[in-house]
Amino acid sequence: MAGISAARIMSRCEALAACSEQPGGLTRVYLSPAQRAASEIVLGWMREAGMKARLDAVGNCIGRYEGVRPGLPALLLGSHLDTVRDAGKYDGMLGVVAAIECVQALNEAGRRLAFAVEVVGFADEEGVRFNATLIGSRAVAGTLRPEVLDAADGAGVTLRQALKDFGLDPARAGEAARRREEILAYVELHIEQGPVLEAEGLPAGVVTAINGATRLAVTVEGVAGHAGTVPMNLRRDALAAAAECALAVERRCANGPDLVGTVGQFEALPGAVNVIPGKVRFTIDVRAAADAVRAGAVGDLRKQMQEISARRGLALQVKTTHENGVAACAPWVMEQLDAAVAAEGIPVRRLPSGAGHDGMAMVDLCDIGMLFVRCAKGVSHNPAEAITAADAETGARVFLRFIENFEAARQ
Amino acid sequence: MAGISAARIMSRCEALAACSEQPGGLTRVYLSPAQRAASEIVLGWMREAGMKARLDAVGNCIGRYEGVRPGLPALLLGSHLDTVRDAGKYDGMLGVVAAIECVQALNEAGRRLAFAVEVVGFADEEGVRFNATLIGSRAVAGTLRPEVLDAADGAGVTLRQALKDFGLDPARAGEAARRREEILAYVELHIEQGPVLEAEGLPAGVVTAINGATRLAVTVEGVAGHAGTVPMNLRRDALAAAAECALAVERRCANGPDLVGTVGQFEALPGAVNVIPGKVRFTIDVRAAADAVRAGAVGDLRKQMQEISARRGLALQVKTTHENGVAACAPWVMEQLDAAVAAEGIPVRRLPSGAGHDGMAMVDLCDIGMLFVRCAKGVSHNPAEAITAADAETGARVFLRFIENFEAARQ
Repeated sequence: MAGISAARIMSRCEALAACSEQPGGLTRVYLSPAQRAASEIVLGWMREAGMKARLDAVGNCIGRYEGVRPGLPALLLGSHLDTVRDAGKYDGMLGVVAAIECVQALNEAGRRLAFAVEVVGFADEEGVRFNATLIGSRAVAGTLRPEVLDAADGAGVTLRQALKDFGLDPARAGEAARRREEILAYVELHIEQGPVLEAEGLPAGVVTAINGATRLAVTVEGVAGHAGTVPMNLRRDALAAAAECALAVERRCANGPDLVGTVGQFEALPGAVNVIPGKVRFTIDVRAAADAVRAGAVGDLRKQMQEISARRGLALQVKTTHENGVAACAPWVMEQLDAAVAAEGIPVRRLPSGAGHDGMAMVDLCDIGMLFVRCAKGVSHNPAEAITAADAETGARVFLRFIENFEAARQ
Repeated sequence: MAGISAARIMSRCEALAACSEQPGGLTRVYLSPAQRAASEIVLGWMREAGMKARLDAVGNCIGRYEGVRPGLPALLLGSHLDTVRDAGKYDGMLGVVAAIECVQALNEAGRRLAFAVEVVGFADEEGVRFNATLIGSRAVAGTLRPEVLDAADGAGVTLRQALKDFGLDPARAGEAARRREEILAYVELHIEQGPVLEAEGLPAGVVTAINGATRLAVTVEGVAGHAGTVPMNLRRDALAAAAECALAVERRCANGPDLVGTVGQFEALPGAVNVIPGKVRFTIDVRAAADAVRAGAVGDLRKQMQEISARRGLALQVKTTHENGVAACAPWVMEQLDAAVAAEGIPVRRLPSGAGHDGMAMVDLCDIGMLFVRCAKGVSHNPAEAITAADAETGARVFLRFIENFEAARQ
């Protein structure tokens, strides 16, 4: 299996990381000059790998490698090219670069398959600029709601205007949508962004599902008071109540399976050393590989927080700010990924994805699958994000084997 | 007992509240134009009440009502004239206004006592401007450290310069200090700033001590991570640990006696809904009416936080940012205050002061005592601070009775 070059994968990730709007770090948001630079590099690599390459109607990079005859349905591979602020070099990019690497290997070997292979570099997954995630993949899946065109960035520029400024026609954004019969499956290689593979000494793993998530904004309101003058038994301390709620989240979500819960934001008001907090706002993020598990945990937490607040005589407000169901990977795709992992001599490990991915949008168009590559200490969305060249190569080799042996689902 | 006018006390508190540097609210810091305005009003009231009135070397208002012959040692009464930001109208001011009211009653009745009565309106107790509390009373007690003159406010103006700008000579600040033999005791009337008297249906109470306080700045450091990808058992969640610590504070300090503990500031970093907090900074404020009780609680909390952090594999830093011991009220002063309360037909309730007061500085010069007046819901340091005119009158009547019957301690 010649053709996979770990050095090329790593140096291409470096090259993309240089396309940044942030000196000394990596930030590349949707439709920015930095993204234009990255797109042009990617389109060039696609062509070099034997693909016909283009920007689609919303700015996604699309490369197509025809099968044994032109116009066949395509196995769609890829990931995203935008980043969070002060990002790592592999989240998204590794999947695009590895997919191009695989096609290049096919092309160099002169192999044509019974299907076309397409590689996509989605222009927006993180949603940093317009506070709406998955714009690139939703456009391809045909689920981008037209009102998103009116979303504005921090400078007040709407997506509509930003598309125009990028040289695209917002009236034609719908043309990015693909027809179901064109796409056999969407399969993405991505760094794990978690510590599980590293903890188990595995370079790669097969994703079972992109977890569903519920986010709650919670406000606990008691009575602010002087830290010195209000006896403990006369207090209505919002912080003590919120602390109990935070520990309830930790305890309930430790009762898996494949369930996590996090209190990430926590604001105590008024926030003075000598004042009992009268109000605390905090967030809860609950994710699970099964929607029923998540719903059960969220329901229990709502009940427990109600009990905590009632016992302490406090007012509780809980608002659901985000909710998305599980995007399950197709069993037939997982089986073929399992086989490719095993053929590389790696024990097969299936695991859910706790992070969101473009598959969450693509699942509305076609079956999906994902291959995770080990990363250092689970760190992501951070300049310290790291992978080894050996793991990049292993991941790409598994991915190439999967592509070469891919068989579309029977209809 | 003619002469005490509830209406005058209340309207004078309103008049002082109008001397503010904040439109629509009350903020009056040390040596500000608003404080000059308040001082001039207070000096006028003092003179109207038959006192010789002056500003001392650090800007305190001092009024003196001679006894049966000039030059006798004085019973010193008063409170402070500065405020916190967005303050209430009674914290400090009520004590100055009530003391003037009592002297006015003596003067109108033509009574001279076996001792002089002095009223002081301390120019700085809250310490808002120079981040150093009790400047006024420390100067009178002779314990103002010279380096405080170099403390700067938010605009970079030193106390030294601010005194000059106010028309005072910083080189003569030491002249505000009084000699021990001049002062028989310092006794202050103040709103409770807590809910105890209200909860027990009492208009006034006798303070036993100004509680000692310890403030800790705590940092718990774990590992930040993706809220979706790090399994619960691989987390080093700084917020969950800090929540445990906060509940430990509440639990330990509920084991009195006369002990309170508060987590008032709490900052989770990085503070994103989808990121496990890697670091949390919070404060602990512990106060007690006995130094040994406070020391025991602080020691236990340090130990418990160490256990919590060790069990969770987190790093803990605990720094003591403030510490002051109990300032006990003199038993002989308390007994005379008890008698005055009882003589007004009010059940005698003794209680510690959880808040700090000028007595903490004055205790270095002379014996101290305090009379608390009930306030609404224990609210203070807040525009919603409230008392009734009836309670203001009752407090002043108790205070006048105490003054009229005052007997200095036998040496």
